[in-house]
Amino acid sequence: MERLPGFRDFYPEPLPHQDVWSADARQYIFDKWRETARRYNFREYDGPPLEPLELFTTKSGEEIVGQLYNFTDKGERAVSLRPEMTPTLARMVAAHERSYKKPIKWFALPQLFRYERQQKGRLREHFQFNADIIGESDPAADAELIALLIDTLRAFGLTEQDFVIRLSSRNAWQEFFQGSIPPDYSMREYEFFQIIDKLERTPKEESEKKLSALGFSLADVNQFIESGQPTAELENILQNLAARGLGSFVKIDYRVIRGLAYYTGVVFEAFDAKGEFRAIAGGGRYDNLVKLISGGKVNLPALGFGMGDVVLLEILKARGLLPKFDANVDVFVLIEDEILRAPSLKLIQELRAAGFAVEYPLTPAKPDKQFKRAQELKAAFTAKVESESYVRIRNLKSRDEIVAGFADAANHLR
Amino acid sequence: MERLPGFRDFYPEPLPHQDVWSADARQYIFDKWRETARRYNFREYDGPPLEPLELFTTKSGEEIVGQLYNFTDKGERAVSLRPEMTPTLARMVAAHERSYKKPIKWFALPQLFRYERQQKGRLREHFQFNADIIGESDPAADAELIALLIDTLRAFGLTEQDFVIRLSSRNAWQEFFQGSIPPDYSMREYEFFQIIDKLERTPKEESEKKLSALGFSLADVNQFIESGQPTAELENILQNLAARGLGSFVKIDYRVIRGLAYYTGVVFEAFDAKGEFRAIAGGGRYDNLVKLISGGKVNLPALGFGMGDVVLLEILKARGLLPKFDANVDVFVLIEDEILRAPSLKLIQELRAAGFAVEYPLTPAKPDKQFKRAQELKAAFTAKVESESYVRIRNLKSRDEIVAGFADAANHLR
Repeated sequence: MERLPGFRDFYPEPLPHQDVWSADARQYIFDKWRETARRYNFREYDGPPLEPLELFTTKSGEEIVGQLYNFTDKGERAVSLRPEMTPTLARMVAAHERSYKKPIKWFALPQLFRYERQQKGRLREHFQFNADIIGESDPAADAELIALLIDTLRAFGLTEQDFVIRLSSRNAWQEFFQGSIPPDYSMREYEFFQIIDKLERTPKEESEKKLSALGFSLADVNQFIESGQPTAELENILQNLAARGLGSFVKIDYRVIRGLAYYTGVVFEAFDAKGEFRAIAGGGRYDNLVKLISGGKVNLPALGFGMGDVVLLEILKARGLLPKFDANVDVFVLIEDEILRAPSLKLIQELRAAGFAVEYPLTPAKPDKQFKRAQELKAAFTAKVESESYVRIRNLKSRDEIVAGFADAANHLR
Repeated sequence: MERLPGFRDFYPEPLPHQDVWSADARQYIFDKWRETARRYNFREYDGPPLEPLELFTTKSGEEIVGQLYNFTDKGERAVSLRPEMTPTLARMVAAHERSYKKPIKWFALPQLFRYERQQKGRLREHFQFNADIIGESDPAADAELIALLIDTLRAFGLTEQDFVIRLSSRNAWQEFFQGSIPPDYSMREYEFFQIIDKLERTPKEESEKKLSALGFSLADVNQFIESGQPTAELENILQNLAARGLGSFVKIDYRVIRGLAYYTGVVFEAFDAKGEFRAIAGGGRYDNLVKLISGGKVNLPALGFGMGDVVLLEILKARGLLPKFDANVDVFVLIEDEILRAPSLKLIQELRAAGFAVEYPLTPAKPDKQFKRAQELKAAFTAKVESESYVRIRNLKSRDEIVAGFADAANHLR
């Protein structure tokens, strides 16, 4: 029986097959995400992986409809596996915002799902690091969030040689747009943003044609992009990041505008410096979403980013930054004489209670086979009960051996 | 907009409302589960939360059908959110078993889903600690697994006053059953097991009636239960656990037989000692499942247990064993003079880079309001930049103050 297409099995390392994923690498990434969030005082939250379909289709923009993993449940509810976390966050914050001091700084590590029918071999789920700041409209919040993004990538050993944050602003584009087109403005603005979003992957002629339909020329658009003149808001963010010593990780790049309809102000994406991979992370301001999701009851400015596990893993592999994940056994207890199995089990219990990772042969095995297994598991020590009172401890690296009293054994394993 | 019935929102503590769950308590439980598994050298794996429906309906017993969160996806596949992890594990092991030395000791922390239409207010998802040993038929494996279960509960501070492992065996019941009924045996055995499984929550008369339809008397069944005579296999397990000093956590209790059809031998459940709660954990041997799932290709004995987060949390709360989860801010950086914001941001960056959890006012705020916020966040220290070169550090517990050089500040925060 096979797993569903687009889903992943996560195996312990070493991996048995190239078709499967590493549970150890996943946990390594999750640990780094959590640890960086902790240093920035972001608190963890989570919501259901399944939500009412309405949460995602209302106001989420055309591009998300049709890509959802949605269905009708046994209670006749229209539901969907979550394709992104932000609507759930907005729902949760709107429900209990009075209980939390602003700004709210929260993160989550959700598994997200999309059903794209046509793309064979493409993943239908991935994990994301989502970090958001809610209740602060000052660009200081944008700088704090981007600093978290930068330090998250640095936590994996990536440097300014490896990645760059491309910083942009829908406000800047809005001014550009408003400067030329007066009527019917709001309807066509998002259409314009969509053209800008796709500029880099669309043939010039096509973009030219679409832009001129809105009364713009590609030349004007390109000139605005090349000027790279930061708005006052972006300048504020750049200075804030420079004060932290993070200035070299960011550059203004107006080609970034983000696809989702709900972004309102500053937007940004993290890319590998060589441009070999898809975006590592992306985010921005969505100052109207909490209001929309809460039906107008709660109005809070907000911003956030999402960083997926798949592209990140590809880059870490390509840069040689993914550690080897061994079993990490501290002590392998050898049981060469079955008469000593009972006191050996007592020793195993005591060492585990002292915090050591301990392995041993569950059933009788030849001494050389046991020792080979200890080596395979990269055990730091072997321990062998020699009588009810004594234990022989061997450091497998230094090959030093000592005989310790039973109660004293744990002290010789540091 | 509301979340779906039976699903949980997990908020950071302190909790804003009694209707929501604690993301911090969940992470506390996950950390303990992972840490105990590590000491026993169980390796983590995971599979998709969505699987082909067939994986769960084939050979999983009548009791699981109709409780599944199943649907037809856009590709016309019959799929289901996973109600349990064992079929996925069997599928994964069967696919790559040659790559792993036996016994395989693996664990997972899956979210599981059930759709029970009738029970209002009941949860439709929960998280489980699943630990399994595959490829070892000796009772030494059962003892190792039960020792892990015991030490997992002890890791939360629960003692032998708080819980007990009720140990039983389908083999023992099989012998009892076989002793009386010769023909048509295999079909009716599972029917008999189901009656035993429900004995404790069924009126006597009803059990009596059902048993006599199979040719048994309730009196004989009760006598067998009360005898509590361990089989040779159970005696072996008891002695193994006694050698570890864990004997007092286990008792033979033949009333335990487990509901799932695929169990084959030893079965067990963990209960709170006072019998106030539902089972904390349950498991047993399923020596035929890997063969069934792999279509006969791989035949490996196996056993495992599952421990849910919901009952565990209830018990930890009732016993006062759940810690308080504060923000755990190490340093709150006070910015009383906006002229010093830039060097303050530099200090914040350096302290975070040194591993400290640092918070600060994103925007200008009155000094007393900043200090109050530091106290609310239970910050261990405040730090205030006094010039480009000096930082005033205050220990909020001892109220000691010192002025340190900028580069030296981190050394005064341990």
